[in-house]
Amino acid sequence: MPTIKVAVYLYPNADALDFTGPIEILSTSGPAFTPCPFEVTTFAHHERVASASPALVYTPNASFASVADSLQDYDVLVVPGGLPATITDLVETDEGRELAALLARFVATPPRSETGKRVLLSVCTGAVLLAAAGVLQRRSVTTHHWALDLLQDVADKAAGGKSDINIVTRDRWVDAGLTEAGVRIINAAGVTSGIDASLWVVGHFAGEEQKKWTAECAEFEPRDAAWGVF
Amino acid sequence: MPTIKVAVYLYPNADALDFTGPIEILSTSGPAFTPCPFEVTTFAHHERVASASPALVYTPNASFASVADSLQDYDVLVVPGGLPATITDLVETDEGRELAALLARFVATPPRSETGKRVLLSVCTGAVLLAAAGVLQRRSVTTHHWALDLLQDVADKAAGGKSDINIVTRDRWVDAGLTEAGVRIINAAGVTSGIDASLWVVGHFAGEEQKKWTAECAEFEPRDAAWGVF
Repeated sequence: MPTIKVAVYLYPNADALDFTGPIEILSTSGPAFTPCPFEVTTFAHHERVASASPALVYTPNASFASVADSLQDYDVLVVPGGLPATITDLVETDEGRELAALLARFVATPPRSETGKRVLLSVCTGAVLLAAAGVLQRRSVTTHHWALDLLQDVADKAAGGKSDINIVTRDRWVDAGLTEAGVRIINAAGVTSGIDASLWVVGHFAGEEQKKWTAECAEFEPRDAAWGVF
Repeated sequence: MPTIKVAVYLYPNADALDFTGPIEILSTSGPAFTPCPFEVTTFAHHERVASASPALVYTPNASFASVADSLQDYDVLVVPGGLPATITDLVETDEGRELAALLARFVATPPRSETGKRVLLSVCTGAVLLAAAGVLQRRSVTTHHWALDLLQDVADKAAGGKSDINIVTRDRWVDAGLTEAGVRIINAAGVTSGIDASLWVVGHFAGEEQKKWTAECAEFEPRDAAWGVF
């Protein structure tokens, strides 16, 4: 199997666990594949990025431009979330518009022949960034359970009216389906739900044995069903 | 309530989720306390630190020396783990010896009067670093379920014979008890178990309401009981 290339977009005040959870899961070697079947690249518009927790400051692996230039090489693209104000501010900036264009282009790019699959994964309110890019219309979708109205509003605004999205509540993640180009869109719900969705990604590309090993390594039971009522 | 100061030690090839999970949990505001009751400082021997996943490269907030100089000001100290070879290599270096001395001094420093509590929290094989520092003797302890023998060996070596540790298996985290100075030692088990233990820390300092809010924000049900059989 060829190495599965994963790109993870970092931006100022992104929620740290929204992307460190997936990166941890997608960086684990296992019995079916050693070294790890995935190769993860973080990229950003900035040379240094502070997450929502100022204790976690990152140096991305690559620039936004370099990933944009080789977008067709990436099999998985991960978009983390943040507080609602962080997201709504981002979509109004040039950086947010460049991201939206990148997302629209990614879901319109058929999978590489070497891997045959391509996945756009949002975590938490990262789904709102997908909605702003107009790629969620007429899909079953989800986001953090405190941001369902925001997702609806931004999706409708991007559609210029009714987006006809079907918001799923209390699932860890939702398969929003394939695009015409054959790219699958997955929305994780809030924060740690990104770990569940990433384990699904491991199974999707590397099989169930690798997925189970990765979950055991992280001491994390996959929770595909609805998450608990608090 | 005064701000609870948290220091998190970063070192090359540390497991990212071992520390980003706790930092996420200890960086969440809530109904009982806004802003967040905790202030988290990452520190290291290096100005830039790559985690076990090369996609996650960190700029720590503070130097090792500066945290060592003001150690008495920190109420919580978090020690993440890594692959066994990463840990056994680290303990043989000057940096590892400085860390061991720091840990021994931390557990011998009575809590600040302003907070009245002090906690040393290891995550995953971070417990092996505590064992190497000689602070786990005669305690009930845990670590990643693949590193139980390593923990026993390193604890015995530090004790120069029998360490008389009681290794607990398949618990998310273990309360290893108070030191003579009144510092509580907590060992999380593997990787995501650090999220469970950190939620306990939230409850310990900021109460159950804050803990429940934080868990809901992260969409993570605390799993205080034994973790699943894989």
